Amino acid sequence: MVLGRLNHVAIAVPDARAAAAQYRDTLGATVSDLVEQPDHGVSTVFIELPNTKIELLEPLGDASPIAKFLEKNAEGGIHHVCYEVGDIHAARDKLLAEGARILGDGEPKIGAHGKPVLFLHPKDFCGTLIELEQA
Amino acid sequence: MVLGRLNHVAIAVPDARAAAAQYRDTLGATVSDLVEQPDHGVSTVFIELPNTKIELLEPLGDASPIAKFLEKNAEGGIHHVCYEVGDIHAARDKLLAEGARILGDGEPKIGAHGKPVLFLHPKDFCGTLIELEQA
Repeated sequence: MVLGRLNHVAIAVPDARAAAAQYRDTLGATVSDLVEQPDHGVSTVFIELPNTKIELLEPLGDASPIAKFLEKNAEGGIHHVCYEVGDIHAARDKLLAEGARILGDGEPKIGAHGKPVLFLHPKDFCGTLIELEQA
Repeated sequence: MVLGRLNHVAIAVPDARAAAAQYRDTLGATVSDLVEQPDHGVSTVFIELPNTKIELLEPLGDASPIAKFLEKNAEGGIHHVCYEVGDIHAARDKLLAEGARILGDGEPKIGAHGKPVLFLHPKDFCGTLIELEQA
């Protein structure tokens, strides 16, 4: 397993359109339109940087995976980092062999970008929620 | 002001050598040696990714700027994101004109990479601590 590019940094926010306007107007960033992703319980806006992107996440629906995070962090906050890997099943097997925990049932799921992803337990990685995405 | 590259994501950790070993051995990342930066109250390890880097921060000395964060997040956590800008004084003036708050006295300081930096108030940016570094 070789850790690849930083695919994105995800920031959970209560209002993704307002956050996107701030990144565009105050910070001078290029931002996408908002896209509702009901299968993932979030609406997303991407901030395109020259070398990677920031993903703004707003809760969508009654069972959003970021609802609890925003209860604890009402203004928002950095939610996770996503690293690319070449083979997500090989990465999963290596991580399990090292004693790291995969969230959910341990099987890669299709993520918000249409590619297989896994989430690693933050307690195993210094309090950081890590997403791995097959590049 | 145009938001440039994501220079780094900073992760505060109680033990940077242990965290670096985990990134190297479990995740397959390239990591630097630990460097003590007494002027900044931190020891740093850089994780080199193909497109950006992760900065592991461990408190150093009695007045570390990350001590409070680690009191609240004992296992560690994502501390800030750092974006590059072309002219930090122009960026500062634009931000102040838009009503954003600069931490400290508002003057750029020489950061841990030897370049001028500013930190923006997290309450103005969705709970995210943003560092701007002159590229």
